[in-house]
This record gives sequence, structure tokens and C-alpha cells, in this order.
Amino acid sequence: MKKIWIADLKEHIGQTIQLSGWVYSTRSSGKIKFLLLRDGTGLCQCVYFRGECEEQSFNNFEQLQQECMVEISGTVRLEPRSPGGVEISAKKLSLISSSNAYPITPKEHGTDFLMNHRHLWLRSKRQVAIMRVRHEIVRAIRDFFDHRGFTLIDSPIFTPSACEGTSTLFETKYFEEKAFLSQSGQLYMEAAAAALGKVYCFGPTFRAEKSKTRRHLIEFWMVEPEVAFNDLYDNMELAEQFVEYIVQRVLKNKSEELKSLERNTSLLEKIKAPFPRLHYQEAVEIIKKENPDFVDGNDFGGTDETIVSSKFETPVFVHHYPSAIKAFYMKEDPKESGSSLSCDLLATEGYGEIIGGGQREEDLSILLQKIKEHQLREEDFAWYMDLRKYGSFPHSGFGLGVERTVGWICGLPHVRETIAFPRLYGRNYP
Amino acid sequence: MKKIWIADLKEHIGQTIQLSGWVYSTRSSGKIKFLLLRDGTGLCQCVYFRGECEEQSFNNFEQLQQECMVEISGTVRLEPRSPGGVEISAKKLSLISSSNAYPITPKEHGTDFLMNHRHLWLRSKRQVAIMRVRHEIVRAIRDFFDHRGFTLIDSPIFTPSACEGTSTLFETKYFEEKAFLSQSGQLYMEAAAAALGKVYCFGPTFRAEKSKTRRHLIEFWMVEPEVAFNDLYDNMELAEQFVEYIVQRVLKNKSEELKSLERNTSLLEKIKAPFPRLHYQEAVEIIKKENPDFVDGNDFGGTDETIVSSKFETPVFVHHYPSAIKAFYMKEDPKESGSSLSCDLLATEGYGEIIGGGQREEDLSILLQKIKEHQLREEDFAWYMDLRKYGSFPHSGFGLGVERTVGWICGLPHVRETIAFPRLYGRNYP
Repeated sequence: MKKIWIADLKEHIGQTIQLSGWVYSTRSSGKIKFLLLRDGTGLCQCVYFRGECEEQSFNNFEQLQQECMVEISGTVRLEPRSPGGVEISAKKLSLISSSNAYPITPKEHGTDFLMNHRHLWLRSKRQVAIMRVRHEIVRAIRDFFDHRGFTLIDSPIFTPSACEGTSTLFETKYFEEKAFLSQSGQLYMEAAAAALGKVYCFGPTFRAEKSKTRRHLIEFWMVEPEVAFNDLYDNMELAEQFVEYIVQRVLKNKSEELKSLERNTSLLEKIKAPFPRLHYQEAVEIIKKENPDFVDGNDFGGTDETIVSSKFETPVFVHHYPSAIKAFYMKEDPKESGSSLSCDLLATEGYGEIIGGGQREEDLSILLQKIKEHQLREEDFAWYMDLRKYGSFPHSGFGLGVERTVGWICGLPHVRETIAFPRLYGRNYP
Repeated sequence: MKKIWIADLKEHIGQTIQLSGWVYSTRSSGKIKFLLLRDGTGLCQCVYFRGECEEQSFNNFEQLQQECMVEISGTVRLEPRSPGGVEISAKKLSLISSSNAYPITPKEHGTDFLMNHRHLWLRSKRQVAIMRVRHEIVRAIRDFFDHRGFTLIDSPIFTPSACEGTSTLFETKYFEEKAFLSQSGQLYMEAAAAALGKVYCFGPTFRAEKSKTRRHLIEFWMVEPEVAFNDLYDNMELAEQFVEYIVQRVLKNKSEELKSLERNTSLLEKIKAPFPRLHYQEAVEIIKKENPDFVDGNDFGGTDETIVSSKFETPVFVHHYPSAIKAFYMKEDPKESGSSLSCDLLATEGYGEIIGGGQREEDLSILLQKIKEHQLREEDFAWYMDLRKYGSFPHSGFGLGVERTVGWICGLPHVRETIAFPRLYGRNYP
């Protein structure tokens, strides 16, 4: 008898099959016992009639506990009222391994308890739904760029120098030298864009931020496209098409999961490009009406972002941030001194910045000046300067944080549920 | 006039278009000048006739150097003899930025020189071809699992304990604690397999090996599937279908790149499942004939792997390695004391092990015993033990190293060319 997966049961209607899985729940009603079985690909109701199944199997129900592992066999039949649309008329039930006092029960547990049992918590229906949506988001991200002729270039995690200031860097010994864990693959993508035109990297990045907010992870995945010859406006166009594509694809392919997460999908259906674009000064005007203490020229805090984004039903771009609050490589607008060709994208419903990016400075002498102003060491950027010495080219790109995007699309209150094994300030377990 | 990419020129036959790119080479023949233009997506020949193009543009050729950035405009026409099958009857040429004494010339350079200029070396035709094959391999890997109902689960890079011995671990300070950089996501995938049935992780992994061989990187990408209810033989079946799929897909979609790498593709065409399976003892017999010093019970060195794999035209499995030389979590064969339910896959042409994996020990008491024998600390594996306490289940998986696979499929002499910015013992730059 072929062992199959619950997700594939519909291809086996009328056949006698065998399933392996874990006990999700059981109930009894006189001569009938019901087993809801979970195998990771789905849930399936198995029905045991006394007299029509093995007597021993019927009696085995006494020993069943939440999450013990069993094997069952029976016949598949269509049953529209059951989860997955099928049901098993079961004949056999074998207990393979026990599960005494499984720690996660249907009752409420505290956050710390659940996080300490993350390896088991992942089995719950809600966490499974989030992981499936996350997977679809990752696939959508890759397909979007792959279908547009981008080349994936994996950027290194070990980097020789501290490129954006040292305060949030993880340091490690790299044999006899020091090395730092990557905060961004961008500088490497700029080199790769000169080789392959349209590139992206997609991997884990690290920020040693001592903050416990609902938006921050220590280790998070970021996708960073970089495109030769693109300016700020090309960059925003790419970013808005990208975000629309991700959201609409999740709506199309993971509607069951969004439903089980009780996500209000009507809000997501409105995420269609083009997105509104605000100059930094326009955004400041909006913020000042509700937060009079905001100081013109500063970066936005979480509350400020929410004030701006609450005015729109789609994500909104803010561009032309002051150069003083952006990284050294961000190009200053030649027509607007002190303002950078930067853009951030703020998500709806208060989920904050999900994209940061802009046009890069391609002039060697201006870049050297910026490196001085930012008190960085010129020698750390020797190879990066080469990109301006040999065929310097206009180019732009951005980074999208995967976990914030998962949190936004799933409607989660905290970023800790957006990745299987989150790393937070004060948490590196399991 | 719309700016387009060289890769898309065939959709614009007869149209007047504009291209941005870098000078790959130029040549002159009286009243005609040829510019071979590179934009990262392809190469395109641009032909300038004196009298039919702008006089200034014709004269601009004097200033062109390898890798300077230019903009051109002209009319696209079919030309089967040109690279890409099209040619531009060019009218205009503008020099955007210079490239004085570009360091990488068509002459031979030493390895160290090229590695120090990796950010520029990537622009060469050969490196571009390798990066495109690598991208196709990554896509094939993901598509294979995605199309079979696997869920991607990103495993953490920061891990709290040293799971496979501490000799090749990178350590970092994680705020007030110590943390280690992941060598494998497997233990986390075992937890995830209980939640989602069929899972895989795919990310960078780290080994602090002080070895300078052509097969070792300090930082390399690994894909690790894990499947609930699979035994050793299911695992080998999955692995051989997987490797066949990757190789055949690269042959199909990247034949141009393999050709430019001068790869003997007839050898790759033979990579079809099923692959031969040798018991460890059978492999030892083969090795001993050519390496009489080999000690029965030892792990294979690179030379030993080559002796075995040279006997076959497809990759070959070796299974049932002695338990003593495998990790603590590898299940011992209940029918064959001292032998593990492990399997490695050795690539053809001396490229060595590309896959390692097997069936995991699911019995709690045996696992505790193994942890003691391997002198590991039981408390480091508290969460991992939970997977055996609550519904323990048979399961198997494997890891495939991406860079070795890229090297094998491209036929490269050294793993350093398989990733954009390789990290080797003694190299963390650029």
C-alpha cells in the first residue's frame, strides 16, 4: 500500500491508502470515533465505526494523546463538509510513538512560554499558515525578479569593514583578522550591476539593535535589487510594481491561509500600483499637524510613519529625505541641495517602512567627500571606489525586509511570528 | 526614445532605440567603426558608417577605452552573424564616463590579482556565464522542492550551541551571551518537518576550516530538505531525482553559457537517475585496489572519493558509513550494528561529495546515549529532544552544497569562481 500525503488525498478517491501523521484531536460518539489527523501538508478526518474497523484499532483510541504519531489505513471518500473536502473510512489505527503531556494545549499560553517552545509551537495551525504565506512571499519575490531578467548574486555575510557605522554591527574573528556580519549586500550589488545589469541578492542580514519593538529582528532576510542606469523615479516604479505583485500573488494563492489568520483581505485587494509619492517636505507637513514636536530635518519615528501612511489606502513613497540623515552613498539631488535622491515605502495600517532605497552617488569626487563627512575610512572603500573609476554609471536600488512584509500581509501584531526561529534582543533559543 | 536592454533587442527590429552600456571592444576598418557594447544582459555590435552617423560620434571613438560607459542610439536590424543575432546601425555615440587603465585586460593575470579585483573581474564573459549558471541552479533547486509541496523554512544563522563539535565554528558575541554561526540548518528542519511534513532550508553556512583546497569555502550556500516518514532509501530516491533535475535543467536553459565555458556537455547528459548505490564496504573494496593504505572504517579523502566515482558515469551513492565517523543524530541500522543509515553522493569527474545525508535517530534513549558518546552537552539539545518526546517520527534528509554543484556542472578547476564574492581561508576581500 502506497504511503501518501494528506494534501494529495483528492487524487485517491475510492482507493485504500495509508497515512502517517500526528493526532490533532479526537472525539467519540457512541459507535463512531473521529480522529483528526495532521501530517504537515493538511488535516484529514478519519472515521472509525465499531464493527467496520479492526476492534483493536477502535480500542486504541484510549491511548491517543495530542501529537502522538500514528499510522492509519482506510478508504478515501469525498466529503465536502470535512477539512480538505475528503474523509477516510478508516479500518486500522497503529500508535507509533507517544506524546505525554504535550506542552502546547488549546488554552492560552504566555509569549515567553511559546517562544521557548517555538520548535513545537510551529505545529499549530496559525503558525503553519504564517509559514506558508512566508514561503509564497519568498517565491513571489524571486519570481518577480527572475521573470524580468535579473540575475541573483548572493552577497557575502562576512565583510571586511564596517560600512554604515559600527554601532549595530556583529563582529567575529575571521582567523587572524576581524570580520563583520553583513548589514546589507548593497555595495556588492553595485559591483554586480556593472557586470550583469539587473541583479538582486536575497539573504539574511544582521543588526545588533538593542531594541525590543514589534518591528525589529536581530537577524532578518532582505532582498536587494540594483539596476544599472535606473534613476530615482525608475526605482520607485520598480518598487511599486514589485510590492503589488507580492500582495496580489499571496491573495491569489494563499487565500485559505489568510482566511485562517482572519486577515481583512479587502484592505490587501487595494494594494495596486501606482502608489502616491510625497516629497519629504510634504510628509513633514502632514506629520506636524498631528505631532507638533516633530523637528523638520529629522528622520521619521514609527508614530510619524503611521501618521503619514494612515492617509492612504496603498503604501506611500516618501522621497527626497535630507542627505544628512541618509547613508554616504545616497546621491544628492543636483537640483535641490541638501536633499537626497532617496525613497522609502511606508506600508498601510501602521506597518511602517518596508522598503528603503534610492539612487547612488556615481561621482568619485563627491563620494570621497561624503566618506570624509561621514567619518568613514577611505581605505575601507578602495574596491567600491573602483566602480566610479572604471565606467561609472547611474544606478539605483532598494531593500525590502521580508519579515516586515510577512507581518503586514498576514496582519500580525509582532514580527516574532514571521520567521520560524526568530532572533530578538535577548533571544537566541531554540 | 525608450531605453532598452540588449537582451530585449530582438523585440525591437526596425526600431530606433537607445542603449546604455560599457565598451567591450572596438575595431576600425576605414570608413566603418565597430563598437561591441556590453550592458550586463548581453553583447551587441554597433556599426558606425562615416557619413551615415553623426561626425562627432564617429570621432568619439578616439576616446573610447575598455569599460568606459557610453550611450548610443541607432536602428536595430537582424544580423545572424552578430552576437545575439542583431546589430545596431548606429547614429550617435556619447561618452558618459571614462575608464583609464582598466586593470583587467585580455592578457593573463595571476589568481591573487584577479581575486583582489573580483568586483571588476565579475564583468568578464566567463564570470558572467558562471553567475548565470549559478542562478539557474538556485532556481532549479527551489522549483524542485516547491513543485513537490515542500515548505521553505529559513533556519537561523545565530545558534546558541555548538552542535557538531567546536573546531570549525565561528563565534560571535550575541549581546551578553555567546553565539555561533550556523554550520547546518538540519536540527531546525527536523522540528519544521514535524510541523509541515516536507520542508527545506536554503541559506549560507559557515565552516572555519583552515584548509586551502579547491573544494572548500569558509562561507557556502547549502540546501537542506527534511522529510517526515522518509527512510534512507526514500532519501536516496529524492536525492537522485533532485540532482538529475538540476543538471538537466541547466543543460536545457543555459546551453549558451555552458558552451562559452567549454563544458563537455555530453558527460552531463548522462546524469540520469537512478544512480548506483554502494554499501560502504563495497566502496572500500574499490578504494583498496588503488590505495592499499586506506584503513577500513575511516572516512574517505578526496582521492578515495575520486577512485570510487571514476568507475561510474553518473554520481554514485555510498551508504551505511560506520556510525563512528558520522554525526550523533545519524540513525544506526538496527539490522547492522555499527553501521549508520547515512548516504553521501559523489559527483562524477572527481568533483567529490556534493550531498551528505541519511535517516535520523528517532529513539530518545539511543539519542541520549549518542550525545554522551560524542561528548556533547545534553542541555544544549533540550529542545531537540522534545522532538523525540512528543510524537517522535521516522525522518530523513540531506544537504547539497551549492558551490560544489556549480563547480561540477560548469567544470571549474576551483570553487573560488562559483560565487560572486568568495570567502576562503585568508581571504575576506573585497
